[in-house]
Amino acid sequence: MATEKGALIVLSGPSGTGKSTVIRALLQLRDDIRFSISATTRQPRAGETDGVEYYFLTHAQFAAMLDRGEFLEHAEYVGNYYGTPAGPVEQQLAAGYNVLLDIEVQGASQVMACRPDAVTVFLIPPSFEELERRLRARATDNEPAIQGRLAKAREEYGRAHEYDHIVVNDLAESAARELDAIITAELSRRERRYHYILEALEGDKTL
Amino acid sequence: MATEKGALIVLSGPSGTGKSTVIRALLQLRDDIRFSISATTRQPRAGETDGVEYYFLTHAQFAAMLDRGEFLEHAEYVGNYYGTPAGPVEQQLAAGYNVLLDIEVQGASQVMACRPDAVTVFLIPPSFEELERRLRARATDNEPAIQGRLAKAREEYGRAHEYDHIVVNDLAESAARELDAIITAELSRRERRYHYILEALEGDKTL
Repeated sequence: MATEKGALIVLSGPSGTGKSTVIRALLQLRDDIRFSISATTRQPRAGETDGVEYYFLTHAQFAAMLDRGEFLEHAEYVGNYYGTPAGPVEQQLAAGYNVLLDIEVQGASQVMACRPDAVTVFLIPPSFEELERRLRARATDNEPAIQGRLAKAREEYGRAHEYDHIVVNDLAESAARELDAIITAELSRRERRYHYILEALEGDKTL
Repeated sequence: MATEKGALIVLSGPSGTGKSTVIRALLQLRDDIRFSISATTRQPRAGETDGVEYYFLTHAQFAAMLDRGEFLEHAEYVGNYYGTPAGPVEQQLAAGYNVLLDIEVQGASQVMACRPDAVTVFLIPPSFEELERRLRARATDNEPAIQGRLAKAREEYGRAHEYDHIVVNDLAESAARELDAIITAELSRRERRYHYILEALEGDKTL
């Protein structure tokens, strides 16, 4: 029997919800997760290696891939393009790994449009008050930036209905356990396991 | 906030697949599972108590409930009726428990018809050869009975496409872990958690 194909998981949610912490906790629970590497037209910074932090592309290369429909999602940010190349994701899935896309909400909607088979998870804080508290605790943003992030979060909550699952990040370990269960449940979906039924019926010499 | 409603889980599969062993292992993993008690028109045996092993009903009582559509599924077996009353299941779900129906394949199809929200799991042995080996190992059936069970299993495999998930019972503990994950994933479905989104948006005084 061939390797069973992995699941494509999209994890998204407002900034400040704690996606990175949850992902770190998830990696303690399972070793069959892989991540996609984004492509970008921005210049590599000191210490960054092509194919490690990013695939560094010229504008022409990026535009050509875009023309050929080779991105699962893409966006422009302060003059540079960023995108998730479909090819490497497809290779990891075919090799049986579950690929997790840690992605902002707009990009997630693009992925859903071209990959309806993706399992999508919207990660939220227990409340808006808690989100605000976390954003202030990071102390990386000034007040207008925090207000901007909160306004954006409200807007993003308006897209929660697009997702298969909603996970509340109260404790990162509990949220990671739910994500772990969502992946395990996805791998047991009938479409993925139906070959057992066919093999049993075909291989049955007594029929 | 009100108690979140539990999930209705239908576990089915051919006889001899090991459902009871998997359920025992599942109960080691979570304590939020409840079972339905079937109703039957057969006479109580020594030591059986009404409302414990079964709800014991007269034929007239059973027929009246059937008329009122109060069974999730029912069947006749050697002159007696058996059925799963919807009422107690609904009460357990409303109280936040996950209700597991351990049920044969025909009954499972009936439940799916009236409860499309049920999460359905088809439990199978690793192969037909293994199923045959397990049926012989039980040593409770003679050869014609074993052949009959195998023929029925083949027929039941033809209904596997009706289920949401297929779980292979190779090791009962692994199968139970998958079932556990399926329940956890179900509880995080967007429809069930959407109240977090609504509460956040409604409760947000800064909007």
